[in-house]
Amino acid sequence: MALSNKTDVPAFDAPELKELKQKVVTACHILDREGITDGYGHVSARVPGTTAFLTIANVSPGCATVERLILMDFNGTYLGGAETPPNEWPIHACVMRVRPDVMSVCHTHSLWSTLFSVLPIKLRPLHHYGKFLSADGPPVYEAAGLVRTVERGDALAAVLGDGPAVLMRAHGDTIVGASIEQAIQRTVRLAKLGEIAHLALLHGEPRYLSAEEIETFSADERFPARGWEYHVSRLGNRRG
Amino acid sequence: MALSNKTDVPAFDAPELKELKQKVVTACHILDREGITDGYGHVSARVPGTTAFLTIANVSPGCATVERLILMDFNGTYLGGAETPPNEWPIHACVMRVRPDVMSVCHTHSLWSTLFSVLPIKLRPLHHYGKFLSADGPPVYEAAGLVRTVERGDALAAVLGDGPAVLMRAHGDTIVGASIEQAIQRTVRLAKLGEIAHLALLHGEPRYLSAEEIETFSADERFPARGWEYHVSRLGNRRG
Amino acid sequence: MALSNKTDVPAFDAPELKELKQKVVTACHILDREGITDGYGHVSARVPGTTAFLTIANVSPGCATVERLILMDFNGTYLGGAETPPNEWPIHACVMRVRPDVMSVCHTHSLWSTLFSVLPIKLRPLHHYGKFLSADGPPVYEAAGLVRTVERGDALAAVLGDGPAVLMRAHGDTIVGASIEQAIQRTVRLAKLGEIAHLALLHGEPRYLSAEEIETFSADERFPARGWEYHVSRLGNRRG
Amino acid sequence: MALSNKTDVPAFDAPELKELKQKVVTACHILDREGITDGYGHVSARVPGTTAFLTIANVSPGCATVERLILMDFNGTYLGGAETPPNEWPIHACVMRVRPDVMSVCHTHSLWSTLFSVLPIKLRPLHHYGKFLSADGPPVYEAAGLVRTVERGDALAAVLGDGPAVLMRAHGDTIVGASIEQAIQRTVRLAKLGEIAHLALLHGEPRYLSAEEIETFSADERFPARGWEYHVSRLGNRRG
Repeated sequence: MALSNKTDVPAFDAPELKELKQKVVTACHILDREGITDGYGHVSARVPGTTAFLTIANVSPGCATVERLILMDFNGTYLGGAETPPNEWPIHACVMRVRPDVMSVCHTHSLWSTLFSVLPIKLRPLHHYGKFLSADGPPVYEAAGLVRTVERGDALAAVLGDGPAVLMRAHGDTIVGASIEQAIQRTVRLAKLGEIAHLALLHGEPRYLSAEEIETFSADERFPARGWEYHVSRLGNRRG
Repeated sequence: MALSNKTDVPAFDAPELKELKQKVVTACHILDREGITDGYGHVSARVPGTTAFLTIANVSPGCATVERLILMDFNGTYLGGAETPPNEWPIHACVMRVRPDVMSVCHTHSLWSTLFSVLPIKLRPLHHYGKFLSADGPPVYEAAGLVRTVERGDALAAVLGDGPAVLMRAHGDTIVGASIEQAIQRTVRLAKLGEIAHLALLHGEPRYLSAEEIETFSADERFPARGWEYHVSRLGNRRG
Repeated sequence: MALSNKTDVPAFDAPELKELKQKVVTACHILDREGITDGYGHVSARVPGTTAFLTIANVSPGCATVERLILMDFNGTYLGGAETPPNEWPIHACVMRVRPDVMSVCHTHSLWSTLFSVLPIKLRPLHHYGKFLSADGPPVYEAAGLVRTVERGDALAAVLGDGPAVLMRAHGDTIVGASIEQAIQRTVRLAKLGEIAHLALLHGEPRYLSAEEIETFSADERFPARGWEYHVSRLGNRRG
Repeated sequence: MALSNKTDVPAFDAPELKELKQKVVTACHILDREGITDGYGHVSARVPGTTAFLTIANVSPGCATVERLILMDFNGTYLGGAETPPNEWPIHACVMRVRPDVMSVCHTHSLWSTLFSVLPIKLRPLHHYGKFLSADGPPVYEAAGLVRTVERGDALAAVLGDGPAVLMRAHGDTIVGASIEQAIQRTVRLAKLGEIAHLALLHGEPRYLSAEEIETFSADERFPARGWEYHVSRLGNRRG
């Protein structure tokens, strides 16, 4: 498994990581600015073609800077950058290890994901923002405890399966994407979907989207560059 | 049909469009600032006396600038300005074509319109902000899929009929006005009405306004200059 | 009735009105800043010892400036300042005329007052912020139509009676005080009470305050200088 | 009881109190900025090893400055600083007197604590933010009236017992901590827990955390330095 060879990974300060690092920081700031997460949560990005990833150190997403990023491999080995890994680095490592299609992972304490994680009702798409989900919505990781161990990370990845998102009971959510932009857009939209679904459920059974209707909406999907530009425009001066 | 003659339409850079262009940009910023829509949606304005309209390019309302406007005719022919039309330009073209009274169209992803679009309950006026609606409230366009084709645009316009607004299931809404100011005021008020109606419905059947009471309130209607001034005052420095 | 003699009223530009005018403007800004009202509503202040009052012209509270105030008497006669009275000046004139204890009146489109104005349930005190109300809460003015006539203003004042507040169906509320500071504090607190009462009612019958408990809390009442300082501190640069 | 000797307490202007004073001010600003409390409430800090504490004078938390702090002992004796004690100083004095483990007390008018204080339902942990609570949640102090007397303060302390928090009916809450940082983190998290619990309860019985699950989450607890940094970063220029 040549790709897991540490020597394939650029150094933390290598110029080819510069853009990726800035994008991870921006993604963290977006989740903070949009109120998706609070002082907790993190965004990661796979270093393309390797078994390493960049994420924020043990700091709040809103306080992220390029200097506060850390480079690790999927075993949790420190490869560079800030010296304190986030408590829940196994979320990123364990998911990326079994999902080669995943280039970015977001973990948040989203109010809406947390809400549905403790309800007797599932979160299911009823706005086209949920078109990246299946008609029966995301699964729930049920175990108590922060995901600080590889054992828990593997269990979380198993519940995620090959899907786009997993709710974490009494905790938040984990969302994956084929790019940072996609992971962020999905994370923002999962929160909006949760809010609408919560409101709608108060009035009786809402009219959910069928699998066929989701497919119709998905045919209109594009690369999320426009949403990214929008979110960046709202960051003001708070950039790393 | 002389009015549809392309030669009647001023060039995108013609001085007589300057004020209208600025007003479209301001209207977009208002919907963004007031939280009515998110990174999606658009405002259009008919070029008076023609079959052409101005709207924003494929950008977020909050990122609109005069340079990012596009001039199109009702057939979707590009007439000037930014080169990427919004995905859902047929919303504007198809409505304006059959509604000569309409000078401006707003399309948003309003939380409240989306909510009522998926409920088993109709949105009906119970605040005088809803006095521009009929007592039984706006209809719902039921079809899945973004309105990217003239076929879908025509179907949307048919559901709108000669009314002021239509909800779009799992998507948002479309509102029309005899001026940009009126379209914006109606759009803001439809959202407020949706919020109040949602809250009220949680406590049992609310006391809706009767057709007669709506008429009493409507007798007090004025040109929405005051609301416009208020919304503009809240834009701060974010202007195009 | 010597006090109604127009000659007793200082000129709009008289130095003795300067402080009162600034306070009316600040009060308007507070209601805007705190989100109690939107682009509509107004605050008035009786000119002490006369039958005249100051209020904002036909502008939004958030856009109020000293130059946009108007001086009127209780008959609606223009006495100075901006030339366009607010549409609903009879709210202030008709209430002050029959309530000599009232030095200030606030009219808002508060979400929470509007909500309770259309519910089959009354708004009753369950937080000590509601201690200025009676245990069975404020009455509701039921008639449709803006209060643009003295006839409607008198009807509103009759429903208010000798109480501190009245909800206006499908519209908002009117609150009175022995000072601008008290009227503003009551207005802010009525909105907070409405929010808490709404939330609580979703979970079954809440534990309301009894008349005796309200009395206990009221014994702790003080002049609302501290709340005023707080609200002023939040105004930032938006002052007239 | 040598520790209660007034001579052991540093003077209000003593250099060894400088950092503690700044931290109390910052803590007040955090509760204001995070919207946990409004113009009312206060934070206190025990002067280590003494029977005295620092808190804000009779001002809003958002308006706190170092100059507006007051130093008092547990009997309410004035020891220095601003001359107007907060109306409810007995909250702090009476709790600290019987709880030597408590170094800081927060009193707020939190919307969510107030809500649960009047409901027929208890606030119980269903997010790991509530892991500092027991599985059956905080008790409620039921008496009407502000806590302006030692008698009421003692009654409040008795309901608090050896727990971390107590809700105050129709009023707010009181939360204690082994440090200012911990008291603030608990206060913020109690509010978040209240919001989630409120939302969840609207959909039927939520899946609460068991005592065992709370223990699992608590094993991951750390000193709240990271949350403190986050909240401080959000204060902008409003510091005393």
